[in-house]
Amino acid sequence: MTPETPPKASPEIKPTIEDIEARAAALDIEDAFPEEDFGDALLRLITAAIEDGDMTRARELLLDQHYADAADIIERMQPDDRAQLVLALGKDIDPDILPALDEEVRDQVLGVLGVQNIAAAVEAMDSDDAVTVIEQLDSDERRRVIQALPAEHRAGIEQALAFPEHSAGRMMQREMVAVPEFWTVGNALHYLQTTGDDLPEDFYELFVVDLRHHPLGKVSTARLLRVRSETPLREIIDDDVEPIPATMDREEVAMTFRDRDWVSAMVVDEDGRLIGRITVDDVLDVIDEEAEDDMLRLAGVSDSDIFHAVWQTVRSRFGWLCINLCTALMAASVIGLFEGTIQQVVALAALMPIVAGLGGNAGTQTLAVSVRALAMKELMPGNARRVIGKEMVVGLANGLGLAALAGTVAYFWFGTPLIGLVLASAMVVNLVVAGLAGILIPLSLDRLGVDPAIASGVFLTALTDTVGFFAFLGLATVFLL
Amino acid sequence: MTPETPPKASPEIKPTIEDIEARAAALDIEDAFPEEDFGDALLRLITAAIEDGDMTRARELLLDQHYADAADIIERMQPDDRAQLVLALGKDIDPDILPALDEEVRDQVLGVLGVQNIAAAVEAMDSDDAVTVIEQLDSDERRRVIQALPAEHRAGIEQALAFPEHSAGRMMQREMVAVPEFWTVGNALHYLQTTGDDLPEDFYELFVVDLRHHPLGKVSTARLLRVRSETPLREIIDDDVEPIPATMDREEVAMTFRDRDWVSAMVVDEDGRLIGRITVDDVLDVIDEEAEDDMLRLAGVSDSDIFHAVWQTVRSRFGWLCINLCTALMAASVIGLFEGTIQQVVALAALMPIVAGLGGNAGTQTLAVSVRALAMKELMPGNARRVIGKEMVVGLANGLGLAALAGTVAYFWFGTPLIGLVLASAMVVNLVVAGLAGILIPLSLDRLGVDPAIASGVFLTALTDTVGFFAFLGLATVFLL
Repeated sequence: MTPETPPKASPEIKPTIEDIEARAAALDIEDAFPEEDFGDALLRLITAAIEDGDMTRARELLLDQHYADAADIIERMQPDDRAQLVLALGKDIDPDILPALDEEVRDQVLGVLGVQNIAAAVEAMDSDDAVTVIEQLDSDERRRVIQALPAEHRAGIEQALAFPEHSAGRMMQREMVAVPEFWTVGNALHYLQTTGDDLPEDFYELFVVDLRHHPLGKVSTARLLRVRSETPLREIIDDDVEPIPATMDREEVAMTFRDRDWVSAMVVDEDGRLIGRITVDDVLDVIDEEAEDDMLRLAGVSDSDIFHAVWQTVRSRFGWLCINLCTALMAASVIGLFEGTIQQVVALAALMPIVAGLGGNAGTQTLAVSVRALAMKELMPGNARRVIGKEMVVGLANGLGLAALAGTVAYFWFGTPLIGLVLASAMVVNLVVAGLAGILIPLSLDRLGVDPAIASGVFLTALTDTVGFFAFLGLATVFLL
Repeated sequence: MTPETPPKASPEIKPTIEDIEARAAALDIEDAFPEEDFGDALLRLITAAIEDGDMTRARELLLDQHYADAADIIERMQPDDRAQLVLALGKDIDPDILPALDEEVRDQVLGVLGVQNIAAAVEAMDSDDAVTVIEQLDSDERRRVIQALPAEHRAGIEQALAFPEHSAGRMMQREMVAVPEFWTVGNALHYLQTTGDDLPEDFYELFVVDLRHHPLGKVSTARLLRVRSETPLREIIDDDVEPIPATMDREEVAMTFRDRDWVSAMVVDEDGRLIGRITVDDVLDVIDEEAEDDMLRLAGVSDSDIFHAVWQTVRSRFGWLCINLCTALMAASVIGLFEGTIQQVVALAALMPIVAGLGGNAGTQTLAVSVRALAMKELMPGNARRVIGKEMVVGLANGLGLAALAGTVAYFWFGTPLIGLVLASAMVVNLVVAGLAGILIPLSLDRLGVDPAIASGVFLTALTDTVGFFAFLGLATVFLL
């Protein structure tokens, strides 16, 4: 369907497999390919191996990589090659690859892997990664994977899945170090040194709890290393840290980490008991995804579809374009009202898109700033009125400036000062409306509990087109005819 | 200039100062204001105190807050109030507030604080925060602040400032724990327990170096706590971590942290010597800022100007709108070529913005996905050709779908099948062009070393408007006249 040429490097830089391997054998593998991205070179090698039917070689090439790099390669492959490779990997796939994949790609990979291999991989993961993978399965697969897990894993995953999507409860992992408040540093050290597999592989803070398992604060590992072993934990605890409720939205979790410069956070259930921890590496992903969502939604795309198949991409973008078609027809019907005017002064037809277009652009500027400021909690009820007033003045000022320029051009183009004046006036009106709409639409959506990024764009351009055409053609009808 | 009403809560939720204080005295201060954001309530209190001229009280209210909350409040204040408050704080301002502020707000705050207070604050900061503040000063102030610093601080800051803006060298802090490879765990523990102020306040990893101070790997503090003190560091070192060159762009640093799930990274100079570390809390800010930049630039805004004064906002947005005016005039001149056609079939004037508008929207969808994928390195030479092909097919498919809908509507509206066919054909052409432009423009800019977010939008809408009008009116001229 899509003209998918196999990913080849441009001819001048096409080392053979042997070349690449010889150079890769050098100390610093990344420096061996100064002309080509290392991932691209490897992708090409693996693709070549798959095309030659040499799956052992394709497997080997991938298994050698860090899981993050392997995930990148798998993402960038063609779907058919990807399926073949994952099939060849089977149960040997590095479990860490799965949570690192783009959601869409992970969907395909999980489909190819099958329930048994998924269960084996999930068992080897931290509980937060396991939840990431399992929550993507359909309910039947999900049930089967969970059943295939050992009982002690199962309970934690079921607990996490009971929390709402995108909540702290889904992000957290159960593996953590919790110690009672009455211990000394020495007790804690002894516990750390004698407890084996039940502790997480890495941790940066110990959580101190009371007898009811309510968290009292954190002790950083660095602090623990630097004090005498008789010191009571109570003396070195940092109790200026609030625990995170498991139901908190992940966007708010991320903002708290960012503001407080945390590396890990204590997660509590509704009774205030410590049930898990969130680590900063997961927060990095959340910040990234939330920012991506806002950016793409403003542009009318629901998710990054760079790895989607063609028809999925078509489907997901078509809906938004249909809504746009409706609003465009609305704006067209406004123009239809003034057909008589356009027939008499045909120059208006050339000028009217300028008014609508600049209104749309100015409104989009305000919209992007407002949506971002809402997400960052920089725009709050306390300063909303002031920002609204500001946007109105900015719209007016930019409107006056652009109106002067555009009006002058129109005057020289068509030779009549009146047409320039009409253009200028319509522009001022539309830019003030655009500025106001750019802030009021996201503010209203936010107050209604709707993601302000998701539908703001449609409403805004519908408004600026309609107002732009109406103001310009209306003024023209009054003053030019 | 701007209609700045003092930030007041809506009348139904306006507790008095006494109310708020009584409730704030309760155990959990945040829960005391369920109806109002705590920051908003505090902002209102501080503003009231400033208006009453009670600066002691305003100071006290702010000094009680966590630096992150204090920074939020200062950001949301009106510029005049902010200046008064900062003046009243003077040298007592919490140094941590400064790096946490929005750049624009920090600019004003630094201006009010004056060189002596800035130098005092900078002296108390980690070296990375100090660089963040100092790099924002103009060269004269910068020189004076640096001169006011103790010699040992000065050298590090001057070294960091010698690295390019937005590089790892500017992000890093010099405070870190580096230990020689021949030490045992016991040596390291002794060093940590006996070395006082020269160590950073918090750290999660020790960096192991050879005799030339080249980094060999990291040892996590958690690991150090769990092994016997006779263990040589060599045995527990994680040497699968590449150091970061000081010249690496901060966006790449952030991506590496995200992919590798790091909490800190070793930074090396051009000779490979360890000169500092980057911690994950700074990476959170970078990811946030870079994502914000991409989102706002796509919408034609250079920076978030939510905290900018009116005239600054006008100035920064006007440039982009002027460029848009030029491209809109270009598109208008294309329409001008077909004045004769429009005169004869005035319905064309109503329909032509549909073709241009939908092209712009479809192109923007592709653009947003491409810009994001470039930033995330998901779009690389290795898969670029495939993605280009895909976008062409997606454009064609969506074009055909929308064309069918729009053509049918136009047919029923104007009663002539031919006008529907012309509309439909122009739409298909424009959506294919839009899809191609949406990926080729950012790819080309990226290859030229220009930020693909920054100018893509102008080029794209200039193209989709021009092609849209030309295709529609051109086809109409051929088939309808």
